[in-house]
Amino acid sequence: MRLFLEYTVNATDKNLSKFLNETASVDEGATKPFAKSRKVYVEGSRPDIRVPFREISLSDTPSAFGAEKNPPVVVYDTSGPYTDPEVNIDIRSGLPALRAKWIEDRNDTEQLDGPTSVFGQQRKVDPELAEMRFNLTRLPRRAKAGKNVSQMYYARQGIITPEMEFIAIRENQRRENMSELLQTQHPGQDFGASIPKMITPEFVRDEVARGRAIIPANINHPEIEPMIIGRNFLVKINANIGNSALGSSISEEVEKMVWSTRWGGDTVMDLSTGKNIHETREWIIRNSPVPIGTVPIYQALEKVDGKAEDLTWEIFRDTLIEQAEQGVDYFTIHAGVRLAYIPMTAKRMTGIVSRGGSIMAKWCLAHHKESFLYEHFEDICEIMKQYDVSFSLGDGLRPGSIYDANDEAQFAELKTLGELTQIAWKHDVQCMIEGPGHVPMHMIKENMDLQLEHCGEAPFYTLGPLTTDIAPGYDHITSGIGAAMIGWYGCAMLCYVTPKEHLGLPDKEDVRVGIITYKIAAHAADLAKGHPGAQIRDNALSKARFEFRWEDQFNLGLDPEKAKEFHDETLPQEGAKQAHFCSMCGPHFCSMKITQDVRDYADQLGVDEKEALAKGMQEKAIEFVKKGSEVYQKV
Amino acid sequence: MRLFLEYTVNATDKNLSKFLNETASVDEGATKPFAKSRKVYVEGSRPDIRVPFREISLSDTPSAFGAEKNPPVVVYDTSGPYTDPEVNIDIRSGLPALRAKWIEDRNDTEQLDGPTSVFGQQRKVDPELAEMRFNLTRLPRRAKAGKNVSQMYYARQGIITPEMEFIAIRENQRRENMSELLQTQHPGQDFGASIPKMITPEFVRDEVARGRAIIPANINHPEIEPMIIGRNFLVKINANIGNSALGSSISEEVEKMVWSTRWGGDTVMDLSTGKNIHETREWIIRNSPVPIGTVPIYQALEKVDGKAEDLTWEIFRDTLIEQAEQGVDYFTIHAGVRLAYIPMTAKRMTGIVSRGGSIMAKWCLAHHKESFLYEHFEDICEIMKQYDVSFSLGDGLRPGSIYDANDEAQFAELKTLGELTQIAWKHDVQCMIEGPGHVPMHMIKENMDLQLEHCGEAPFYTLGPLTTDIAPGYDHITSGIGAAMIGWYGCAMLCYVTPKEHLGLPDKEDVRVGIITYKIAAHAADLAKGHPGAQIRDNALSKARFEFRWEDQFNLGLDPEKAKEFHDETLPQEGAKQAHFCSMCGPHFCSMKITQDVRDYADQLGVDEKEALAKGMQEKAIEFVKKGSEVYQKV
Repeated sequence: MRLFLEYTVNATDKNLSKFLNETASVDEGATKPFAKSRKVYVEGSRPDIRVPFREISLSDTPSAFGAEKNPPVVVYDTSGPYTDPEVNIDIRSGLPALRAKWIEDRNDTEQLDGPTSVFGQQRKVDPELAEMRFNLTRLPRRAKAGKNVSQMYYARQGIITPEMEFIAIRENQRRENMSELLQTQHPGQDFGASIPKMITPEFVRDEVARGRAIIPANINHPEIEPMIIGRNFLVKINANIGNSALGSSISEEVEKMVWSTRWGGDTVMDLSTGKNIHETREWIIRNSPVPIGTVPIYQALEKVDGKAEDLTWEIFRDTLIEQAEQGVDYFTIHAGVRLAYIPMTAKRMTGIVSRGGSIMAKWCLAHHKESFLYEHFEDICEIMKQYDVSFSLGDGLRPGSIYDANDEAQFAELKTLGELTQIAWKHDVQCMIEGPGHVPMHMIKENMDLQLEHCGEAPFYTLGPLTTDIAPGYDHITSGIGAAMIGWYGCAMLCYVTPKEHLGLPDKEDVRVGIITYKIAAHAADLAKGHPGAQIRDNALSKARFEFRWEDQFNLGLDPEKAKEFHDETLPQEGAKQAHFCSMCGPHFCSMKITQDVRDYADQLGVDEKEALAKGMQEKAIEFVKKGSEVYQKV
Repeated sequence: MRLFLEYTVNATDKNLSKFLNETASVDEGATKPFAKSRKVYVEGSRPDIRVPFREISLSDTPSAFGAEKNPPVVVYDTSGPYTDPEVNIDIRSGLPALRAKWIEDRNDTEQLDGPTSVFGQQRKVDPELAEMRFNLTRLPRRAKAGKNVSQMYYARQGIITPEMEFIAIRENQRRENMSELLQTQHPGQDFGASIPKMITPEFVRDEVARGRAIIPANINHPEIEPMIIGRNFLVKINANIGNSALGSSISEEVEKMVWSTRWGGDTVMDLSTGKNIHETREWIIRNSPVPIGTVPIYQALEKVDGKAEDLTWEIFRDTLIEQAEQGVDYFTIHAGVRLAYIPMTAKRMTGIVSRGGSIMAKWCLAHHKESFLYEHFEDICEIMKQYDVSFSLGDGLRPGSIYDANDEAQFAELKTLGELTQIAWKHDVQCMIEGPGHVPMHMIKENMDLQLEHCGEAPFYTLGPLTTDIAPGYDHITSGIGAAMIGWYGCAMLCYVTPKEHLGLPDKEDVRVGIITYKIAAHAADLAKGHPGAQIRDNALSKARFEFRWEDQFNLGLDPEKAKEFHDETLPQEGAKQAHFCSMCGPHFCSMKITQDVRDYADQLGVDEKEALAKGMQEKAIEFVKKGSEVYQKV
């Protein structure tokens, strides 16, 4: 079963006003810039396209290794304004609406008088909620009658939106200082193959038009820094948050979101199931620099007191509109769980493990009717395109164990998701497809291949997959293996799994470990796919390691704090981090040290001059020993 | 660079006598049996072949799910007598010499008067060492003149040794209760494809004779429970221990070894570099139920005060004999680091990162001569076959960064290792090949393919490989991904990496995490290879999960203690572990619950009766709701 990845907290919403009055910002640990990192922005064709990056400055190479400058390394940055010391964060106001003007300029949306969903209207006027309500002065927007405001629609019209240009710069950032970096790392060598192709705004547009990539960007979430999900771009990861039935405070939910983006979450899914999820969601969206996804059926179920059989299309529809007008960027919708497929799960080891899938299965069984999500799919598309909400077509019948992997039920649903993708595309609604789950390594590629085939190359978004079932407590690792592999094969986004999967509710540290594990998987996939420039960071870190620049090694890592902490456990002295030998091997054993010797020698001789090599043996041996057989010969 | 994976301890050898007097056994935490597990033995064709397993007993399926018995699951057990409450452990006496009679019966070895190495003799009579010396009354053995005592020699003579029979039972254990298990898990279904082929003693013999597998089993290490390394058997993992220059106590080294085998280490490498490593090694070997590997050049270097250029063949030779007579089961020897290959590393990002490789490179440079290991390789074989020490041909030129993966130097060395394998086999000496290191995912398979091609299918034994360089602090994960993949492709043994790799010395918890990560990789590989019966444990755990048998889920996992601890953080009550719904989703959402409903329904109707399904819709809907739309209908 898929567990719901929430923090364990005992606070209640009553804490909110206290929180708001006392702090009005998130915990410093979640926002302080990493050591030697600074926020930089690259401007696009207009001044309000300002693409954020994190620039990691490096120290010089020590003289023994050639005393060269190491240019800073610029990395993709999901953390939004929170890590920019220039920005004053006040979660009561939310983030600046950086896309507001772009949306207005398109002149195809209208400002509503207020929420148009019944539920949204009720919540807005409920006096009991006054204290916890986010004070949004801006009114919701919707497409003008007959208009389609999806990025896919624009792309197919040949329009390059500011969002697309933003993304092109963002995905392409490594090129900015790449040549310089490569030259420093390996002077005089030819890097023809590894010089990245420029990712152009036109390329972004074309991928979105083809449906091979999506830009989750609800017109009611103007606060996001646009990002793209597609297999010809960097592999992305999603982190889940959400309050539990026990209840966690709204402020804590906001902090979870910030914490997730700090470590590299590209999108965040809000899987809340408790009460006040409408208000909680508002706070999250208003403060989130990354797209927010939800599973609307969860909230719909709350509205019928948890009785799946009482769900109706009308309640679901109102929930879609409610959330779309708040600014949710993508909806997981399990419209592929068809009545006929449910009996296919009967002989499974673990049946239906998707919560959304099981809710729909229960509804179908209770009514013995086809799923209303499937029957109303075109109606859903009509809603989505008015706000540019993207589909994340849920895999309600994904396998929950190795035994059930790649079975009839799973692939029957996948084919249906392919049909639904075509319908979504007919409406120019952006669409990605969710995938498993639990799959042994040799069966992973089939998932990717069939998804591409059945779903017309729409982006795939998988949960792991877990490659074995026998390690509860370590399912970030069982699934990180599968995630890296499916990312290599072409999966566009990986939904993280924490160490607490199957066992309990993740705490902050679990979330961090889950995200870093998935950043590893995504980056390993980028490397394996030969993504332009992905290797720059590996090279810079390896060079720092070789040159004993310990601090640079930490700072270039995915988790600089953990790396430093681990190092300091053994050698806490400041001096050790500058030591020119590796602390573990000691001066006699250090292999890095010896390599420099080899390099000096080869440089003198010329690598290819084998004859000279043979001739000079005796002479060199004498010289080497005369110099004290030492490695570092000061220049 | 490869760091040396040692515990951080401040104790010194002076602690030893205190330790010995006070405890004379290892820490209880390292030896107490896992919950609901007991040690069982399967007897072979003679009463002294007693193959150990761990039997995990399971509770009954709750009545809502059918109230059936779940037969116990029997798993491979590396922990030796330490987890057998019937055995009285006293590390002063060492473990029982269970292979002693098998070795004697072969009548091809002789008992020596004492160590024949110069160093071994010196240490034996040094009065200062009296207090720390293991009191071994048994004398070392060696092949009689002209005899070869390797398992490969016997195999090629058509002899099935007791070691081979032991291994056949051990590898094949899952078959014992497999049919019963499968029947319980899925009554009435056909499991033709997953019923394992019997692994026979003859199959073991044949694989060893072909060189496709090795049985590391020095005649002077009769305490081991025989195991096999080869790609047609379960994937194995190695854990590294070893005292550091700072010094850790002998007793702690023994405890590290026991701790490693508790979590699943199939072999242990003693990478000690401090003083008294001769004595430390003796204590480890006498108490180790798993094969012990070493890198003899490390100790040889100690003997020349760390000056690589002062190494000689004579010193190295004496070290080999010293360690062979103590009972080391395999030697890592970097005989493939040839003089001509060293300049090939000059343009690398990270040069030579293997410690053994860099020692030899330094020697070659200092003398400008071909490596003495390469030149004396046949002499080394002559020593190995007198004790049945297996080769682990070291990859001294393995890549230390993604940038350097699969380069000229690495593959030049690999070809040489292939030549050396042929020489070893000419002497009937068992041989495996070490592999990288740092390799991006898309370049892993080439490593495996070339290794099989160049080295005649000798077993491959890799360190990871790490699939990216950008996550110091998480290199168990960056490498666990690569390890799982190369295991699937055919790698026979995976050398673990801990979270402290590249940063510092691992502590106990790091070792545990490293081992579990590698057990995951090895098991995921067994599943992907379709290893007979590997999936039984996954199935049993998934079934327990589906039926909310929480304790069984923990106990079937690789780390039952961690799983329980994680679960209890959220729901510490005893009752929660019996709850018939998942704590995270709550009773309304539980997907497992709904699945049972689906299953009941399909059972009534028959899965294939589609017509009946359509007809019965309305009727069933009414019935479902009448019954209260509830899932668990008590029988």
